[in-house]
Amino acid sequence: MKKIGILGGLAWPATIEYYRAICQLSQNYHSQFEFSGPSPMPEMCIESVNINYSFNQRGEIGNEASWNEYDKYFNSALQRLEKNGVDFIIITANTLHTRFENITSGIDIPVLSIYEAIADECKKQDIDQFLLLGTEPTMKSNSLPDFMCKKAISVLPPPTKDLKLKVVNLILDLFEGKTENGSNVLNEVVNSAYLHMDKKQKIVCLACTELPLAFSGKEQLATFIEKEVTYLNTTIIHAKAAFDYALQ
Amino acid sequence: MKKIGILGGLAWPATIEYYRAICQLSQNYHSQFEFSGPSPMPEMCIESVNINYSFNQRGEIGNEASWNEYDKYFNSALQRLEKNGVDFIIITANTLHTRFENITSGIDIPVLSIYEAIADECKKQDIDQFLLLGTEPTMKSNSLPDFMCKKAISVLPPPTKDLKLKVVNLILDLFEGKTENGSNVLNEVVNSAYLHMDKKQKIVCLACTELPLAFSGKEQLATFIEKEVTYLNTTIIHAKAAFDYALQ
Repeated sequence: MKKIGILGGLAWPATIEYYRAICQLSQNYHSQFEFSGPSPMPEMCIESVNINYSFNQRGEIGNEASWNEYDKYFNSALQRLEKNGVDFIIITANTLHTRFENITSGIDIPVLSIYEAIADECKKQDIDQFLLLGTEPTMKSNSLPDFMCKKAISVLPPPTKDLKLKVVNLILDLFEGKTENGSNVLNEVVNSAYLHMDKKQKIVCLACTELPLAFSGKEQLATFIEKEVTYLNTTIIHAKAAFDYALQ
Repeated sequence: MKKIGILGGLAWPATIEYYRAICQLSQNYHSQFEFSGPSPMPEMCIESVNINYSFNQRGEIGNEASWNEYDKYFNSALQRLEKNGVDFIIITANTLHTRFENITSGIDIPVLSIYEAIADECKKQDIDQFLLLGTEPTMKSNSLPDFMCKKAISVLPPPTKDLKLKVVNLILDLFEGKTENGSNVLNEVVNSAYLHMDKKQKIVCLACTELPLAFSGKEQLATFIEKEVTYLNTTIIHAKAAFDYALQ
């Protein structure tokens, strides 16, 4: 198996779910073979950053120079992973993918995009539109909608500032492992958002790798349905893509 | 805060508990300060190895040459952590500490010993004897008992082969995240072991970082009492020592 580089700590609860998912996928995969001792695992290197520092280096959408420090902090982390000898890298946050080109600049090994993994999952499930929930930069930037547009998937952001703020505040709690009442908050946001829209199917992309933690017991499911809403769990979708690639 | 290097994957469920513990300790510590955004975290680099490979490279106690491959595999991983730029390292397994001198050979940054952390905790709690439960090499080697002897702590291994085997088999389940019935197995082992001994206090050192996972809900407690037995959780004792050191 290829060695997996993981840019983590964004925040720590999501990093745990990525790592757990990859290890359990490896166990499941190897259960078809005979081996002695514990199940074979891909080697991994996790570079876990200080999210407080990076959060406070976020720039403004549209002002390129304001992101310099942010980009540099993560680019250095990716360089350390490359020097470690990993075969490829995953970045465990949707937010960072809004700066993908800049952050991965000069990195000579593959970096598996979470957007690509989400688009592949949508194709597999015949999904052509979803409501986008994520951090402020993810919901504000055109990065994810533009990417999905090229794959013929329409991305709907929450229609009001108030709904966006509810998601942003929930994420701050989830960053610290506080999950109480999270699924109710999201359910409310989703129903309010879809009130404004003429769609027969409610599909939500949890495009912050912390958001699936709001649904206790469903953290490890790539997609799940709750109260007639289909949720895309980008954490597990991305972790699965990484494990599949490690096997190739 | 200092950057923490973690040699992990031994096995993955214990690595999760170490990482979770350090992140939660950082949150608790920083809750006394004002800051904007998510809680500050120490930077970390986790080198997660393939436990199937290392398990099958285990040598025989007393036959130095038979451990060559095992020592080399882990020494290389520590070298990668040192090159990454971490300030110090923790090795997340008691078993590896039986080969501590060999594995850390040539490493020029501090490696915080789990034995030292256990001895410090014993001193704090006025503990001068414990039953040792761990992997086969940990229970068979003189490494941990000799270390504790110098700290005036007597180490009692399980008195029969059968009891040792029960612990070894339980650990193989825990390596894969299977925790069902684990606490009952350990309770039985402890009571049988103490039947043979004339001790007023039942104190058990869970000297395999996976063993605390057998006690659901207590994985994050450095010490805990269950059915009149005091358990030392070496995973959390070691993680706390690492966080304290990172703060210094």
